[in-house]
Amino acid sequence: MFQSFDEVSDSSQSASRVERLRASLREAGVDGFVVPRADEHQGEYIPASADRLRWITGFTGSAGTALVLPDGAAIFVDGRYTVQVRAQVDAAVFAIESSVDTPLGTYLREHAKGLRIGIDPWLHTVGEVAALRTAMGEAGGELVALRHNPLDRVWQDRPEPPKGAVSAHPQALAGRSGEEKLGQIRDALRKADADATVLTDPSSVAWTFNIRGSDVPHTPLPLSFALIPREGRATLFIDRDKLGADAMEALAPLADIAAPEALEAALGEIADGRRVMLDPALTADRLREVVEAAGGTVVSGTDPARLPRARKNAVEIEGSRRAHLRDGAAVSAFLAWLDAQAPGSLDEIGAAKALEGFRTRLSEADGQPLRDLSFDTISAAGPNAALPHYRVNRQSNRVLAAGEVFLIDSGAQYQDGTTDITRTVAIGEVSEEARHKFTLVLKGMIAVSRARFPVGTRGVDLDPLARVALWRAGCDYAHGTGHGIGSYLAVHEGPQSISKRGMAVLEEGMIVSNEPGYYREGAFGIRIENLILVLPAERIAGADLDTHAFETLTFAPIDRRMIAVEHLDAEERAWLDAYHGDVREKIGPRLDDEARAWLEVATRPLA
Amino acid sequence: MFQSFDEVSDSSQSASRVERLRASLREAGVDGFVVPRADEHQGEYIPASADRLRWITGFTGSAGTALVLPDGAAIFVDGRYTVQVRAQVDAAVFAIESSVDTPLGTYLREHAKGLRIGIDPWLHTVGEVAALRTAMGEAGGELVALRHNPLDRVWQDRPEPPKGAVSAHPQALAGRSGEEKLGQIRDALRKADADATVLTDPSSVAWTFNIRGSDVPHTPLPLSFALIPREGRATLFIDRDKLGADAMEALAPLADIAAPEALEAALGEIADGRRVMLDPALTADRLREVVEAAGGTVVSGTDPARLPRARKNAVEIEGSRRAHLRDGAAVSAFLAWLDAQAPGSLDEIGAAKALEGFRTRLSEADGQPLRDLSFDTISAAGPNAALPHYRVNRQSNRVLAAGEVFLIDSGAQYQDGTTDITRTVAIGEVSEEARHKFTLVLKGMIAVSRARFPVGTRGVDLDPLARVALWRAGCDYAHGTGHGIGSYLAVHEGPQSISKRGMAVLEEGMIVSNEPGYYREGAFGIRIENLILVLPAERIAGADLDTHAFETLTFAPIDRRMIAVEHLDAEERAWLDAYHGDVREKIGPRLDDEARAWLEVATRPLA
Repeated sequence: MFQSFDEVSDSSQSASRVERLRASLREAGVDGFVVPRADEHQGEYIPASADRLRWITGFTGSAGTALVLPDGAAIFVDGRYTVQVRAQVDAAVFAIESSVDTPLGTYLREHAKGLRIGIDPWLHTVGEVAALRTAMGEAGGELVALRHNPLDRVWQDRPEPPKGAVSAHPQALAGRSGEEKLGQIRDALRKADADATVLTDPSSVAWTFNIRGSDVPHTPLPLSFALIPREGRATLFIDRDKLGADAMEALAPLADIAAPEALEAALGEIADGRRVMLDPALTADRLREVVEAAGGTVVSGTDPARLPRARKNAVEIEGSRRAHLRDGAAVSAFLAWLDAQAPGSLDEIGAAKALEGFRTRLSEADGQPLRDLSFDTISAAGPNAALPHYRVNRQSNRVLAAGEVFLIDSGAQYQDGTTDITRTVAIGEVSEEARHKFTLVLKGMIAVSRARFPVGTRGVDLDPLARVALWRAGCDYAHGTGHGIGSYLAVHEGPQSISKRGMAVLEEGMIVSNEPGYYREGAFGIRIENLILVLPAERIAGADLDTHAFETLTFAPIDRRMIAVEHLDAEERAWLDAYHGDVREKIGPRLDDEARAWLEVATRPLA
Repeated sequence: MFQSFDEVSDSSQSASRVERLRASLREAGVDGFVVPRADEHQGEYIPASADRLRWITGFTGSAGTALVLPDGAAIFVDGRYTVQVRAQVDAAVFAIESSVDTPLGTYLREHAKGLRIGIDPWLHTVGEVAALRTAMGEAGGELVALRHNPLDRVWQDRPEPPKGAVSAHPQALAGRSGEEKLGQIRDALRKADADATVLTDPSSVAWTFNIRGSDVPHTPLPLSFALIPREGRATLFIDRDKLGADAMEALAPLADIAAPEALEAALGEIADGRRVMLDPALTADRLREVVEAAGGTVVSGTDPARLPRARKNAVEIEGSRRAHLRDGAAVSAFLAWLDAQAPGSLDEIGAAKALEGFRTRLSEADGQPLRDLSFDTISAAGPNAALPHYRVNRQSNRVLAAGEVFLIDSGAQYQDGTTDITRTVAIGEVSEEARHKFTLVLKGMIAVSRARFPVGTRGVDLDPLARVALWRAGCDYAHGTGHGIGSYLAVHEGPQSISKRGMAVLEEGMIVSNEPGYYREGAFGIRIENLILVLPAERIAGADLDTHAFETLTFAPIDRRMIAVEHLDAEERAWLDAYHGDVREKIGPRLDDEARAWLEVATRPLA
């Protein structure tokens, strides 16, 4: 099993841990301290050894920040986690604040007047620290970058840092050699007139050097840094014990290997009198300190691996197509099996385990075994699905009961591709309202799927297409429409997104999710998600511009029983029937007779 | 006549003027100089006495910048003006650059290495100067803010600054008193913990003090500044000779009057040791210099009059509705008259003059006389309409010929409201292609008109609705979908817009244009424009959210002969028929029998 359902958060020791931290702060000579959910790599995926926020607050969400002051403490989370934070955090110890309504900076201006607030500069980006410093200045106080993390000093039962094995990612799947990728990065350095850069995002390191790791759950990241000079040899800063023989061999021509602890000294040496490009949105502020202390100049630029990594090459695209057929077969087989279960006989955990079983078996059969889930499966029945980021555990586990809607959002890590799919199905007869809302969500999902748009269009320009039908009904959903996906890497990958903040242009080869939803608190939740690939659209008569369109990668039936057909127009019905025709054709041959028979029915054209 | 068609640009003296400027630069001790199209108020609307860019380059567009270097010069314009700039500017003197592909800063990095580049800090915003300073730093040169403009020293035939009369704007039309508005601004100062602010945008001064002026064509701006302390009396910096008795009387309780030249000293005095709020996007950098030289602190904040001015109050909304009925009658009467002219018998100038005549006569009859056009009418036949910002003059004047499409974009300034409307009509039988593209543009215009969207939605979130149908055909238009409009003020007003840059939330009471278009270079141009008002939408059953919708303010027929009905869906046809029903009902009674008979036909339901 790749997923545990026993995760329980524990805030019973928050009070005493905060007291111990305060004592440690006094020793460090500061009045307060900021505890972000971040490690030295500033990513969404952090090892247990870096989950300081959970240790002190009990909060297990993927984003949040705590602030400990002499006579109070607070935790800041966004709208996704307002329900969860109340359930997990001791409100007597931590005041609960919305990071949107009251960002940390605003809070500091009011509550930290004249105080010395400490941070660990390894755990905040250059941009974050600049903003916090401004805020503390306006508060008449001071932001203090501490050389040693005062929380770590009092964290007795701290887990060991992970030592996940690192292996080579075969060029037959990567499509491009490490030499080529280093060449792209050095071109970016020349363009920015910079002498060197540091890759601090393990996804960028993994992509550049064609390696994969196993330090964090569900994402094959090798926690590591890379120092890449414009001239001369790169250095990979990683625990040598992690490296398998194949990885060693693959890395030998590309980079020297050094311990992560050696990064600061090496960067200081190379930075002296030189221009070092750092991504202020991704890089720990500590590295800026090192460059400037060494007499170097920081050149702000985006991580040079970020855009080329997002623009999948032909080999990666072929791999993703294969992975999605394999995964679509597993999901379809699961949906067929699910339909055969008597309402009330199955619970959320049982469903998630069953789906994992289908993925394991069908991928074995396909000769490309499931490496991991790409995230903890969201298996949510009835009102549980109204929490977009719900994670089932033994306490919350709910039976799939007749008349309720069941939402399952899951994904897989195969060596040739990462998947992410959501289906929402009816258990027995469901309410008219649920079917109406499902149909509005489907209209949005179809509008994005069949969009054609000029080259240069950004994600923010497509996001509204997914919402217009819901808006007309006075409804919406409080998350983005789609995120980028890695190639056997992170299931959330930038720079592209289809969202209100999606300022990156959607370029050829980018893969994004298309997952509008609707959530009625206490009642039900709906989400429909396919992955889609940006490709050039064929030029049509009378067109002035080159346009892009999406190729749908995900193939599994969309529950026709949830559709109120009268709300779909002719073009929408045609799209769905054509999609189901493709599902039948591509997935049918991969299923056993029973499941194939079910698929025939599930993919019939709409009446 | 409010519009002259004799405007001719002249670049014959550019070479000698550039030489004289270079001599002046040597005296000033700089190597180069930046000539923006801007005055001390940083607005789109500048008097002839400030049109330095036109004097030295001959360029008459509304946006652009020139750079004069020791051995070269360049002009930077955006996509709207690529055609015009080539026609107007002597390319032997000024290299023509795209301000999008090669912004001034980028150009300086390459072409001004090690040079001292002068600017007039009165003619650049705080934000612009910061960017230019960075660019010159990276170019190893220096940006020098000059105390005296070296161009003005060699500009012999420079026009006098305008002395347009300033009158009071009656509270019966403004809906809110100057005291109330000053109160709103002082609340903003308290919120920002600032001691004072300077209003540098004449629209903000006019709105705050309920005055209107006549310094620039088509926009009743009183060129002036206002210094508003949080405590104590405001000062209006304006040429006293401009003020009529009613304005004097209206201003007496609100502010002291001082000469514009007195602003620097007065600001320095109040700034000493205090916090002064300036809008870095609107304020001349010279004022930042003054505040900081006086030992004050600049607090960055948006012009506090900007948002309240954009959110029209009930009285302003009523005025706008009246103004639009009056204006819609004039436009409808014009369209009726136009249809009666034999193809080939009328030219663009004749059409523009005729429309102005209808506006003059019908507004007189309505007791609210036309004060001015809100901009020079865009009267464009055939291929001329393919230039979105075409202005007809005697040289370009073209006959409205059978088989061609005619586009007319115009607006009026009435004391109770500002209008802006575009109609595109068929002269005789037009091509299938023109009708197809017109219909795609209409689909987008209808999609925005009937949109319902959650409170908090931004303009950028609606812009794609106007484009989707064109995108599907591989087409688009290279301008925004809509801009804000003032209340007897500027026809282009922020902060809101429906565009790719429209990050401002669309709030109740805001008026925006809805004007998608399509331009086939060398062939034809299409644009359909109504003004629309943001209002709360009635809550519908099953809705979760409060939503906004648009009330259409503009009433004039949309040419049914241009519509390829088969491309409209049932909802789009219903919208158009209902709109034409409103036009018939509201405008018909204001027309003479002949025009009313024409209107009956023009507004019939689609077959």
